[in-house]
Amino acid sequence: MRVYLAGPDVFLPDAAARAAALKAVCDRHGLHGVSPLDALADEPAAWSGLPEALRIARRNEAHIRTCQALVANLTPFRGPSADVGTVLEVGFARALGLPVWAWSNDPRPFAERTRAFLGTADGRDAEGLLVEDFALHDNLMIEGAVLASGGTLVLGDVPAPARWRDLGAFTRCVAALARQAAG
Amino acid sequence: MRVYLAGPDVFLPDAAARAAALKAVCDRHGLHGVSPLDALADEPAAWSGLPEALRIARRNEAHIRTCQALVANLTPFRGPSADVGTVLEVGFARALGLPVWAWSNDPRPFAERTRAFLGTADGRDAEGLLVEDFALHDNLMIEGAVLASGGTLVLGDVPAPARWRDLGAFTRCVAALARQAAG
Repeated sequence: MRVYLAGPDVFLPDAAARAAALKAVCDRHGLHGVSPLDALADEPAAWSGLPEALRIARRNEAHIRTCQALVANLTPFRGPSADVGTVLEVGFARALGLPVWAWSNDPRPFAERTRAFLGTADGRDAEGLLVEDFALHDNLMIEGAVLASGGTLVLGDVPAPARWRDLGAFTRCVAALARQAAG
Repeated sequence: MRVYLAGPDVFLPDAAARAAALKAVCDRHGLHGVSPLDALADEPAAWSGLPEALRIARRNEAHIRTCQALVANLTPFRGPSADVGTVLEVGFARALGLPVWAWSNDPRPFAERTRAFLGTADGRDAEGLLVEDFALHDNLMIEGAVLASGGTLVLGDVPAPARWRDLGAFTRCVAALARQAAG
């Protein structure tokens, strides 16, 4: 089973080594990890005229289309929520009907993280916008997509300095996906 | 043409009035706006057993499936990027093949906003993760999805106190979508 590895891991200084580490975990569980950093087989010649950023976006969409599942790193990224690029890919995979599995190294509920970020205990932010509070890990569309797709969200409790390093939650997530796929 | 109105506007204190205002703009341009707050015709009875948050997520997915286009409010939300619920819906619509149009009331490039948020001029954040810098409005997957779908991103330059009120960029976005749909 080909599994697209969505996450802000691509922004790490050692992104290639990180992708290799994620893939190695997949290998150990009999899955084939596909990284956003991978070259795309048969990339359309027409894309060569696109600016690099838009070519990367097309390539990632195409990678997801070659996969049978997606595993997303939802560890909060520069704010209370997951990386938006990762979240876009979750929505993309969900609409394609792929099982979407997810993990995060921050176990706090979304409302708690949001209030900590805003520095308020109120139910609304300084601009009056509601603090979503459903005892979920992030915005309801994300966990909604994961659960509706048949996937699971696996939470790790990792100290901040290790949150972009620790692979415990990722490994448990991949193991659970592999068990279900073998099921 | 039915157009799904994605955005954190649902978090505003007067969310119902806001949805009505967005729909009125659509009406004036011959489009039918669909709000995440709308009831779903023929909601499956099985969903009544779901927790409210997950039912909302299913409903929004179903709303998008009834639409022929999506218009997303990408105004930055609690950080440098758009609201993740909105972004998930952008990815969902993109995978369904819908044209995705978008607007934002903050015209600054993503890298500029991110550096302002991080309080650094560096190319990486304090954890070493890259600041994406492609002269786009947000993460490349978002603008990539909009442009690949045939949509356009419309930027407004709105002072912060009015950024959740001003409908200028939204109106231009809807007008352009209506022109293309009529074309």
